[in-house]
Amino acid sequence: MANFDFKNLYLINPCKLDDECYTRAMHAGYVLDEAKIFSNFSQAVKEMDYLVATSSIESINDKRHLRNAIWLEDISKRLFEIEGNIGIVFGREDYGLYNEEIAACDVMVRIPTSESYPSLNLSHAVGVVLYSLYLNKDIEKKEKITLSNVEKEKFFYFFSEILREINYPEHKFENTEVMFKRIMGRAMPSKWEFHTLMGVFSKSLEYIKKNKK
Amino acid sequence: MANFDFKNLYLINPCKLDDECYTRAMHAGYVLDEAKIFSNFSQAVKEMDYLVATSSIESINDKRHLRNAIWLEDISKRLFEIEGNIGIVFGREDYGLYNEEIAACDVMVRIPTSESYPSLNLSHAVGVVLYSLYLNKDIEKKEKITLSNVEKEKFFYFFSEILREINYPEHKFENTEVMFKRIMGRAMPSKWEFHTLMGVFSKSLEYIKKNKK
Repeated sequence: MANFDFKNLYLINPCKLDDECYTRAMHAGYVLDEAKIFSNFSQAVKEMDYLVATSSIESINDKRHLRNAIWLEDISKRLFEIEGNIGIVFGREDYGLYNEEIAACDVMVRIPTSESYPSLNLSHAVGVVLYSLYLNKDIEKKEKITLSNVEKEKFFYFFSEILREINYPEHKFENTEVMFKRIMGRAMPSKWEFHTLMGVFSKSLEYIKKNKK
Repeated sequence: MANFDFKNLYLINPCKLDDECYTRAMHAGYVLDEAKIFSNFSQAVKEMDYLVATSSIESINDKRHLRNAIWLEDISKRLFEIEGNIGIVFGREDYGLYNEEIAACDVMVRIPTSESYPSLNLSHAVGVVLYSLYLNKDIEKKEKITLSNVEKEKFFYFFSEILREINYPEHKFENTEVMFKRIMGRAMPSKWEFHTLMGVFSKSLEYIKKNKK
């Protein structure tokens, strides 16, 4: 983290930060000193406006999500256009991220790795991702994308409401919600785009509901 | 190395390749099995046609070399144009490369790192360099998203139909159509995502239209 100018470390249920941790951190012990510790995922990401899940593997379980993953290089080029708190989420050394954690993220990033040995260890995954982000950090910041968590939630709520009102099949419901979140996560719409689309959705919803009375 | 499809490891005066080495190598023990071991630098690089020295630090000693250093991203883009044996040279964990070793190399590569903490450990330096090279190894490898123009047109047609049916303001109509096309263009949805979203739109349209009868 310190090698690439990152300093805000959030840890969820970590091991004890003992002497070995500090020895390994070398001159970056201050990152550990200032690390925030949480007992669960949802609490840790509460104040994040945009969440990026990371993976180098394509398991059968999350194939559906991963099929829509964005490559690391592509997100790195655009991530700094986003205004607000951005969280990069790394999973466990042995298992990576659970499906529900991936689902809670706005976008799923895939690190390009060998097909025959795709799975990076945690430390190198972090190294590679932060390096890639660092390369793009100083790129001229143009029109920032600003959207609060609250607005985003409202936007996705409208989409879910439409699904409900058109009697969307129960077994496909959640997958389609996540899919739509991924699409918008990759598209990174501007405030204006979000609001315009929200207008279309709310109006559609209104027309659909009218029908039911 | 295995994560990024590299396999030819040359070691100069290494420690003993004991159990701990194999444990750490995980599924890449074969890289260690096939590693070539040399007792000195000049012997190790004898058959190399092009040598790349690596560094993330700029010390006073090798300032002269570093002043001519090329950034990692720049060499990565061009290295695979070189015919012959290419060697990437990494230094010792504690000291890096000696001046005479750097001098023996064809080019000095600098890894972009933080000014306040530039020095990567060996393991992460190797990870980042090989990742950067891997990215440029075969760009066509990245899966392309294919969707026919006809399907895409049908998809956007549904969106426009919804706008029409919800009596979307005439003067905003075209702008919103284009905006939506842009959003989807940036999101680059897969075939499956397109079809799922098309399903939601066509069903919404159906419900909206029912109302009008």
